[in-house]
Amino acid sequence: MDVQAYLAERSRLVDAALERALPRADAAPAVLHAAMRHLVFPGGKRLRPALAFAAAEAVGAPPERALPVAAAVELIHTYSLIHDDLPCMDDDEERRGRPTVHVAYGEAMAVLAGDALLALAFEVLAEAGASEPARVLGALRALAEAAGSRQLVGGQADDLHFEGARADLASDVRAGAEAVEAVHRRKTAALFGAALVGGACLAGADAAALRRLAAFGARVGVAFQIADDLLDRDRDEGCSLVALIGEAAARARAERLLGEALEALEPFGAPAEPLRELARFAVWRDR
Amino acid sequence: MDVQAYLAERSRLVDAALERALPRADAAPAVLHAAMRHLVFPGGKRLRPALAFAAAEAVGAPPERALPVAAAVELIHTYSLIHDDLPCMDDDEERRGRPTVHVAYGEAMAVLAGDALLALAFEVLAEAGASEPARVLGALRALAEAAGSRQLVGGQADDLHFEGARADLASDVRAGAEAVEAVHRRKTAALFGAALVGGACLAGADAAALRRLAAFGARVGVAFQIADDLLDRDRDEGCSLVALIGEAAARARAERLLGEALEALEPFGAPAEPLRELARFAVWRDR
Repeated sequence: MDVQAYLAERSRLVDAALERALPRADAAPAVLHAAMRHLVFPGGKRLRPALAFAAAEAVGAPPERALPVAAAVELIHTYSLIHDDLPCMDDDEERRGRPTVHVAYGEAMAVLAGDALLALAFEVLAEAGASEPARVLGALRALAEAAGSRQLVGGQADDLHFEGARADLASDVRAGAEAVEAVHRRKTAALFGAALVGGACLAGADAAALRRLAAFGARVGVAFQIADDLLDRDRDEGCSLVALIGEAAARARAERLLGEALEALEPFGAPAEPLRELARFAVWRDR
Repeated sequence: MDVQAYLAERSRLVDAALERALPRADAAPAVLHAAMRHLVFPGGKRLRPALAFAAAEAVGAPPERALPVAAAVELIHTYSLIHDDLPCMDDDEERRGRPTVHVAYGEAMAVLAGDALLALAFEVLAEAGASEPARVLGALRALAEAAGSRQLVGGQADDLHFEGARADLASDVRAGAEAVEAVHRRKTAALFGAALVGGACLAGADAAALRRLAAFGARVGVAFQIADDLLDRDRDEGCSLVALIGEAAARARAERLLGEALEALEPFGAPAEPLRELARFAVWRDR
């Protein structure tokens, strides 16, 4: 399976849904709608939507079944990037080679664009509910939990406070590594898990399948973040396992998490092949 | 009917639900959870939750049926206040006689607390879905739309840009009044409408009843905002009908909207009495 081709094909699916969901850039208020679109298009690899599609396939459904979750999870991911980039947070001026939203549209509009993208994620899901409302509510619940104060937002709050705690953590490597992974679990892996669980939920998966997908997502998400830290030249700043235990140990940890993740998929058999390839891609990237 | 007693009683209902929904202030990450609670408790009049409860009553259901919408709408309202108060928005240091969230917890935590309250609103609704998922999705859709870029967030975006347009608007009073009311409709009335429609939706209301409640909410919301402007000593700043057409004309406009709102309730008969009283209270307040 060619994972790059898979990602490109699934990107087209979710991009079309995002194009339909987002108000046009000239619809009033035009500045807000242009700001909302700034980071959504052209976007990144659309990895989270791909996980939602592949989860539906893993439980024997056509990928399109997961489309509302694929769009919603990308909207949530994009909102979180816009707010993380704000001057009062990570204060980043560039993302994906372009000015961040607050640089391009001002800080107030960046806050509002993020807010509106988060609300839109739930609107997209709510509008998908006509034929299978219970499934949609299950997916929506997974996404809302993952976006909330115990997961995504909580992870960002802990990440902001991480600098202050680094000296303490460096003196106890085991506790430090656990603290780093806890941030990764909440800030990254929870949304991976929600994409998977949400996508499978819309496809009618049973509780056992959802549990396996959640376990898979938790591990792939942390391994993905470790892989990110391995690629990052600024790894001495902020919350990074590489800075704490070194490159070789971090790589070994990511490999182990990937192995556990793939194990969780065993009962799914062949239909989970796209999921397996996505997991390898997420952890290995340009290898 | 004693509207103050009604508000106090319904406040107790929604406060208990909010207390259950919000993580404890000492649950990790504690700073985030304390920041989320800062403006929720003790809170204001809980007018939006009261509208949700009264809408359920108007269609013949017990008020408790609307509880998830009552809690969700208050969470959305609170998040919007926290973000509106930010230095990059209205830059307010005090609200309800206490420091705003960014003054008490810092700007980053105020952005995150708002984000998490918005996600929590949808989580609360999604968790209420077990027995009547289609009704819950209908309510959720109304709230997500009202919170989105065409309504609440769009109204705030226009409000921020209002100063720049004031000179133009003052030269054409009719267009100016329409522009002010358009902001009020989006920033205030849409969420009133969603509280009503969502509450009635959970109570099993039919489409005709929902349309009447939406019409009622749109008018009461704008009239409420005009009443707010009439009480406000800073009315020469920002988006205010009073500044544009004067006190007497603004009061007459609010009265007319209230009359139209009450007309929309006629078919509901006696069960809509709490709604009528809430509308009069919203527009007349301390009279």
